[in-house]
Amino acid sequence: MTFAGKIFFMRTVFWEDNQVKMIDQRILPGRFEIISFSDHKALAKAITDMVIRGAPAIGAAAAFGLALAGYESASSTTREFLIDLDNASTTLKASRPTAVNLAWAVDRVMAQILQWLNKEPKASVDTIRQFALDEAQRIADEDVEINKRMAEYGAALINDGDTIIHHCNTGALATVDWGTALGVIHTAHEQGKKIHVLVDETRPRLQGARLTAWELEQYGIPYEIISDNMSGYFLKAGKAQKVFFGADRVAANGDVANKIGTYMLSLAAHDNDVPAYAVVPTSTVDLSLAHGDLIPIEERDPEEVLGLEFHGERVAPIEAEARNIAFDVTPNRLITGIVTENGVVYPPFEVNLRKAVLGK
Amino acid sequence: MTFAGKIFFMRTVFWEDNQVKMIDQRILPGRFEIISFSDHKALAKAITDMVIRGAPAIGAAAAFGLALAGYESASSTTREFLIDLDNASTTLKASRPTAVNLAWAVDRVMAQILQWLNKEPKASVDTIRQFALDEAQRIADEDVEINKRMAEYGAALINDGDTIIHHCNTGALATVDWGTALGVIHTAHEQGKKIHVLVDETRPRLQGARLTAWELEQYGIPYEIISDNMSGYFLKAGKAQKVFFGADRVAANGDVANKIGTYMLSLAAHDNDVPAYAVVPTSTVDLSLAHGDLIPIEERDPEEVLGLEFHGERVAPIEAEARNIAFDVTPNRLITGIVTENGVVYPPFEVNLRKAVLGK
Repeated sequence: MTFAGKIFFMRTVFWEDNQVKMIDQRILPGRFEIISFSDHKALAKAITDMVIRGAPAIGAAAAFGLALAGYESASSTTREFLIDLDNASTTLKASRPTAVNLAWAVDRVMAQILQWLNKEPKASVDTIRQFALDEAQRIADEDVEINKRMAEYGAALINDGDTIIHHCNTGALATVDWGTALGVIHTAHEQGKKIHVLVDETRPRLQGARLTAWELEQYGIPYEIISDNMSGYFLKAGKAQKVFFGADRVAANGDVANKIGTYMLSLAAHDNDVPAYAVVPTSTVDLSLAHGDLIPIEERDPEEVLGLEFHGERVAPIEAEARNIAFDVTPNRLITGIVTENGVVYPPFEVNLRKAVLGK
Repeated sequence: MTFAGKIFFMRTVFWEDNQVKMIDQRILPGRFEIISFSDHKALAKAITDMVIRGAPAIGAAAAFGLALAGYESASSTTREFLIDLDNASTTLKASRPTAVNLAWAVDRVMAQILQWLNKEPKASVDTIRQFALDEAQRIADEDVEINKRMAEYGAALINDGDTIIHHCNTGALATVDWGTALGVIHTAHEQGKKIHVLVDETRPRLQGARLTAWELEQYGIPYEIISDNMSGYFLKAGKAQKVFFGADRVAANGDVANKIGTYMLSLAAHDNDVPAYAVVPTSTVDLSLAHGDLIPIEERDPEEVLGLEFHGERVAPIEAEARNIAFDVTPNRLITGIVTENGVVYPPFEVNLRKAVLGK
């Protein structure tokens, strides 16, 4: 690999020289480039355009984006500064609708600032600016630590010799580092378990074929790419023992919104008695939504479906129209367990998920 | 459309000037070209390479290929001529493993020749040669007639206003003319029913995005392309009322081998109480196989999965490996009905399919 090892030493998103920097995931695996942002609006657009993606990664990116807005603000009074931050948080939270981590991270930075200002009402704009950045940095650092904890819990579910079907990208690139579902697989591999990964290519954006394959190459974990519609074949043939994926939002009852295709994959796993696990930090759980049908589902540019080429030629007729639904909701009845940093949650999710998130 | 209307006047495969001619389906919709064959081995390779595809179409193509072998043969005795045909039939039947129509068509031509020779033992090589061609032509003509009959039965299942999910290509291009599942949709449209088609792009070969979209453009039937993994979303959201697909082989119990992805689509239809119909001529039913797990499943070149490009750049890492399973088996429990030229067959398929095929 041209870039072998690089991501072991570099986070997906980080703060450096008063800028937010991130790996441009749109051009991987062909090219490895870092993009720098000193404007929170450009950063929000980069989230929309999927320069960075993955629920935990865009959460951290948005938190850094809010810190950036603090650096951009020329306001000299606390009141005006907070209005600037509030406007920025609206912009950042609107960049993508489905992943709750975006709102969670931005709201957390704002709430922490306000709580701290209650104790320190005379804090200068400069110190609030620094406080926002420190909180964003904490979110990023915690994400890595949380992923490592989830990975330990999840890896215990994997047996030596397992073939695992994985959907989308949930690795270091989908988080600040290490990953959720792919973090579990990475940890199981480091524990010496011999595993094989069937990588759903994950149409239409092909995060599996692009990013998960690239990560697995670097970790030295054996894998094969399949088109999403092949997973049913392998499950029915008894050739896969586990299914792992991440999530963009989990409702209070354990319904899982995740990358389009997760529902059909989970159906096929369930039809063949193969366990299917979602791996999510508790920041992805939205206890305010009773069930998954309340989760907003993003629809994106049809060109992401239509723009495919083979041998340099566009596949679809030039007049063709398309739909591009980015996520679906997998009902809790198809989910075997939800791996969080507080342990693996099993049904009844209505009760146990709340306990895992709130500790009660 | 550059080619608007053309396929209304041209069969997918036909005999002309002592050659077998077929539309090159690998380059549609970008270019429309006819390839001519005067060598049955080249024709068999064209079937393997998917110049022509679709179970009924490759059946007719193989029958014409056998007739071509008759024209190629320099044998002057009936015995030697029949050995040449027998060798050619082995080559043709080996070109693709899953669709039973290939073997069915070749075996039918051979069986008809032998039966006729029983009555006319003194027939000259020239008359046998002509008989083989006549029989191949009958198979092709019958295919069109059978498709029209299936289309009438199938169209009765479609309501005005239905949105229909369709997998792969099952249209005029998958048959000699008109089509199986897409023929049903075409007929419903001609009956004045207002319908909308969600076209599974059908990874990895993208027959939906390439060929079905191209046909629907020409018929003026409204459609939108979706990636295969989106069909679950539309079914769960109550936005599709019917699912239609073809088949490459149906076992005696109604298990359906069809293009990869059919199993997961059928699972999603079943999970949402949406009826799923296979549309197949009885020549696609293999009563010799008790159930679908006995159907041979083709695995193709991984490059068909890996070779995707976006904006001229290859998507997967250059080192990546892939699997490319071309078909899957949908268990009969997920199939609402099987539309044949002898009517719609409902469960119990073990009993009713045999009746539809054999009339008893």
